[in-house]
Amino acid sequence: MIFIDACFGKKTPFTPVWMMRQAGRYLPEYMKVRSKAGDFLSLCKTPELAAEVTLQPVDILGVDAAILFSDILVVPLEMGMNLKFAAGEGPTFSNPILTKDDLNALEVDEAAKKLEYVYQSIKLTREKLADNKALIGFCGSAWTLATYMIEGGGTKTYSRVKKLLYSEPDFLHKILIKVTEVLKLYLENQIKSGVNAVQIFDSWANALEEEAFFEFSWRYIQDLCLFLKSRYPHIPIIVFPKGVSGYFDKIEGSFDVFGVDWSTPIKLAKEKLGGKYVLQGNMEPTRLYSKKAIDKGVEHIVDIMQNERHIFNLGHGILPDVSVENAKYFINLVHNKTKI
Amino acid sequence: MIFIDACFGKKTPFTPVWMMRQAGRYLPEYMKVRSKAGDFLSLCKTPELAAEVTLQPVDILGVDAAILFSDILVVPLEMGMNLKFAAGEGPTFSNPILTKDDLNALEVDEAAKKLEYVYQSIKLTREKLADNKALIGFCGSAWTLATYMIEGGGTKTYSRVKKLLYSEPDFLHKILIKVTEVLKLYLENQIKSGVNAVQIFDSWANALEEEAFFEFSWRYIQDLCLFLKSRYPHIPIIVFPKGVSGYFDKIEGSFDVFGVDWSTPIKLAKEKLGGKYVLQGNMEPTRLYSKKAIDKGVEHIVDIMQNERHIFNLGHGILPDVSVENAKYFINLVHNKTKI
Repeated sequence: MIFIDACFGKKTPFTPVWMMRQAGRYLPEYMKVRSKAGDFLSLCKTPELAAEVTLQPVDILGVDAAILFSDILVVPLEMGMNLKFAAGEGPTFSNPILTKDDLNALEVDEAAKKLEYVYQSIKLTREKLADNKALIGFCGSAWTLATYMIEGGGTKTYSRVKKLLYSEPDFLHKILIKVTEVLKLYLENQIKSGVNAVQIFDSWANALEEEAFFEFSWRYIQDLCLFLKSRYPHIPIIVFPKGVSGYFDKIEGSFDVFGVDWSTPIKLAKEKLGGKYVLQGNMEPTRLYSKKAIDKGVEHIVDIMQNERHIFNLGHGILPDVSVENAKYFINLVHNKTKI
Repeated sequence: MIFIDACFGKKTPFTPVWMMRQAGRYLPEYMKVRSKAGDFLSLCKTPELAAEVTLQPVDILGVDAAILFSDILVVPLEMGMNLKFAAGEGPTFSNPILTKDDLNALEVDEAAKKLEYVYQSIKLTREKLADNKALIGFCGSAWTLATYMIEGGGTKTYSRVKKLLYSEPDFLHKILIKVTEVLKLYLENQIKSGVNAVQIFDSWANALEEEAFFEFSWRYIQDLCLFLKSRYPHIPIIVFPKGVSGYFDKIEGSFDVFGVDWSTPIKLAKEKLGGKYVLQGNMEPTRLYSKKAIDKGVEHIVDIMQNERHIFNLGHGILPDVSVENAKYFINLVHNKTKI
């Protein structure tokens, strides 16, 4: 698979490309399946439908990898938290972790088992996916998940989790350890079910100052990476901690690919990390609104990353109001411009 | 004034300190005045009350500078846009800029005049403020204001403004030019009314890729800085573009102080910008929840910035649920730790 070769830094006939959230609302085909499923969570929990939307962007756009359709929050859900996706609002948990009892009530082994629908989705997808296309599994980082679990939903100020971080760091570590235990089982099961690579999303990495990032987030990401690498060295690991370009000098670990968000100049990522890791990213997602903007964005990144180890992607998820035509144009352009 | 001396890089007997949003909801005294005023906008528009809350943190906490109590959005408001602050939600404009006619309908000279209540607040504050304390005026950057004006409020995706940026950059420039014209008059009037320094907030700087940041935001900030510096060289200018640490190599201009947000390691800012500009910042605001966290945060920054040109501040606004006791503790600690 070209995608997997690229993850390991091998020369490929062109730069592989996929898009975060590529199985999503900009695709009319997705909306059809979604309305069949009912709500978002039901779609995640119905393997046949989840597999169907996972495959759509490969068929429709010609991306080089499919990413499992799911949500990072199914992990806390199956640990025992009441997850709701209210229309128009972000996800919420009605029972945030406030006390040690709340934490003790959460499950580990059972949670990993209850996520069976994810493993089923993977099996169904892998059966139907072309042999030369990779299937990417994923999870949220322990820090990002714990933040949701403690705040009870999205947050702008991170008040609760920061109070915990400063006043009861040991308790926060206990939460992170427990979540990491589930994530190990979860990604291991994803691999056993057929994913060819995994990505760890640390969407809220930049809620943390440098030292705190390494203590409360990166450390657990690396714990997870080491666990997987020692068992499944042939499965590439992609990490995607957002907004931490200021900390690049200290980034190091057992992963293969570093996902660059779009607010980080790709040149900076190349200078700081490109020597050690394959880079993935990082076109600004709103460029997909305009072909001219796509042209400039792709040209800029190709200029900097030619002859470097690179996987093309957006620097954040694709937006729901992008036209399918422009998304196709982007994928084709990357293939054409990077052909050797 | 120690604060002004520090802005110009002169040696001071201690490092001056103030906090963004220091006139705010964490202060019971503020809440009292706020309830007297009715809503937030009425407070901005009532000079006696605005002056009163501007002075509170100087009296209560002993900060070295007062910052005018107001909001960056009074500028588009007085240009002719319908601004609403709904409780619990962010600010919205019911008439976002969609067409050239919308832009043409907005006022420049009249807007600067209608902002008279701000100038009155400044005069009243300056009369009552101790001579050794500075009064800081401020405005939003043209980019940040234009984003609100085009999106009609806050945004996570910047869809509308980005579509404009890619499809009609000339129109976007016209908007930015017009806003900048008002900002020039506005800050000039603030200076004439008695502010001793000005800060330009570019809260949405990091919505822009590197090249776009310099073309659509920084360029207009610098236009404004040059205008002010040529007329009022004795008034220090503080710029605060958030989340652009990846672009520091290209930051240059006619300003005195660079405000560092908390997600940027202060060491990085010192290495890249400390030689050329005074730095302001950047303690992580949630550290104010805990005295131990304040101790560590202050110590870390003092360690790095001792013997450097520095103004202490938070790296973002103070949060509403911080205790006044801890805020005082922070201000005192900075003074004590930096005394020479």
